[in-house]
Amino acid sequence: SGLVHIKNPHLEAMEEDVLYHLDLGTRTHNLPAMFGDIKFVCVGGSPNRMRAFAQFMHKELGLPGDGEDLADICAGTDRYAMYRAGPVLSISHGMGIPSISIMLHELIKLLHHAKCRDVTIIRIGTSGGLGIEAGSVVITDTAVDSSFKPQFEQVVLDDVVVRSTELDKDLAEELLSCSKEVPDFPTLIGHTMCTYDFYEGQGRLDGALCSFSSEKKLKYLKRAYNAGVRNIEMESTVFAALCRLCGLRGESSC
Amino acid sequence: SGLVHIKNPHLEAMEEDVLYHLDLGTRTHNLPAMFGDIKFVCVGGSPNRMRAFAQFMHKELGLPGDGEDLADICAGTDRYAMYRAGPVLSISHGMGIPSISIMLHELIKLLHHAKCRDVTIIRIGTSGGLGIEAGSVVITDTAVDSSFKPQFEQVVLDDVVVRSTELDKDLAEELLSCSKEVPDFPTLIGHTMCTYDFYEGQGRLDGALCSFSSEKKLKYLKRAYNAGVRNIEMESTVFAALCRLCGLRGESSC
Repeated sequence: SGLVHIKNPHLEAMEEDVLYHLDLGTRTHNLPAMFGDIKFVCVGGSPNRMRAFAQFMHKELGLPGDGEDLADICAGTDRYAMYRAGPVLSISHGMGIPSISIMLHELIKLLHHAKCRDVTIIRIGTSGGLGIEAGSVVITDTAVDSSFKPQFEQVVLDDVVVRSTELDKDLAEELLSCSKEVPDFPTLIGHTMCTYDFYEGQGRLDGALCSFSSEKKLKYLKRAYNAGVRNIEMESTVFAALCRLCGLRGESSC
Repeated sequence: SGLVHIKNPHLEAMEEDVLYHLDLGTRTHNLPAMFGDIKFVCVGGSPNRMRAFAQFMHKELGLPGDGEDLADICAGTDRYAMYRAGPVLSISHGMGIPSISIMLHELIKLLHHAKCRDVTIIRIGTSGGLGIEAGSVVITDTAVDSSFKPQFEQVVLDDVVVRSTELDKDLAEELLSCSKEVPDFPTLIGHTMCTYDFYEGQGRLDGALCSFSSEKKLKYLKRAYNAGVRNIEMESTVFAALCRLCGLRGESSC
């Protein structure tokens, strides 16, 4: 049907669904009217960059006006920012797995309530490259954890549930072929490693704490490269896991 | 000496330290002049609330002007927001362990470079209460993970290091005695549970995914209560672990 899958039997019985961190809700907003025609959702960490991206899309799509005054749809909260340009929604998710996870739960429910069909979601955040030219774009085939395993460990109450982090391979190839029209950015498909920590978790030598040597760091990063990792960031595993479970065509292109 | 402890032997050899996510650095800013007299740092998730808190402190401390036009010290980035009111720094940290962890690494280095002494840091975010009156303030004696263990598992490269999450007991008692002057907020000392996930991790029935029953949720929350947990949030374990390791007098009061 192309609809988003909600896997929560409690939701149908609720009289109202408040998407708290987006400052939206099923009683306060007509979600099908506001979002029913959305076909693409692009997400990234920084609110300013996601506004700039919506403005860019506004111009690219030839929509009326200069797009400079796009309103933040989530203006009532400062947890996330959301803009739209035609069928494209542009949303910030902050930094790290927990932050993007809250946004994705509420976004997926939003797409469900709005009865959106055939939605593609792309993460367009920043990441650190590994053994590739600076400025490259890495399209993720599979997100991996800090042990290079293609999985996301979700704590449900106090049980650990292991979820797959494979992304949509056809969409990855489609994005790669689009990239051939853009000569300025070397683009490749590879694994993306997702960590819980920016400093100690990614081998940085300049955090407030650092207990490893430069040699040990390089050894780890080389092992990551040999496992197929081409970039490192902090959101892709939970993004991939939630897209798969909810039937969203998803990709990460950082 | 009252100075902050940096536990990174590489840092001394660096010619410049760029605190990237705060848009500050040792070459671009005179950090001792800007921050050397800071004695208190208050942190919370939302940038708007941390601005409002700095404005409140500005008035409470009787500083000149109405405090309405306090400048965001990190205005060059939208990752975090930072305001000061006299000796009090007020900083946002976003949502979740990874997000607050990036900010804390850079804040701790900032306090080190600025040669600050005897700094107290208090997290004043929001949290969900457990078996207590709505609107209560919980002062954390110990932060616990989703299995109620007083520990934080930090991934360093691909090793897991277990760190203690005990907070400053004297500071907790001091805050509790301050609370007696404020009649409107029931205040207590208890354990704070820190989770990686807002929906499935905290027993919510209204996420995009929910695989447990209302009964199973209540059973889990009762076990948490019996283990001493009085509130639930998403940042306290890494906050406690980093404060302890770096010699910062820290408390969480949510």
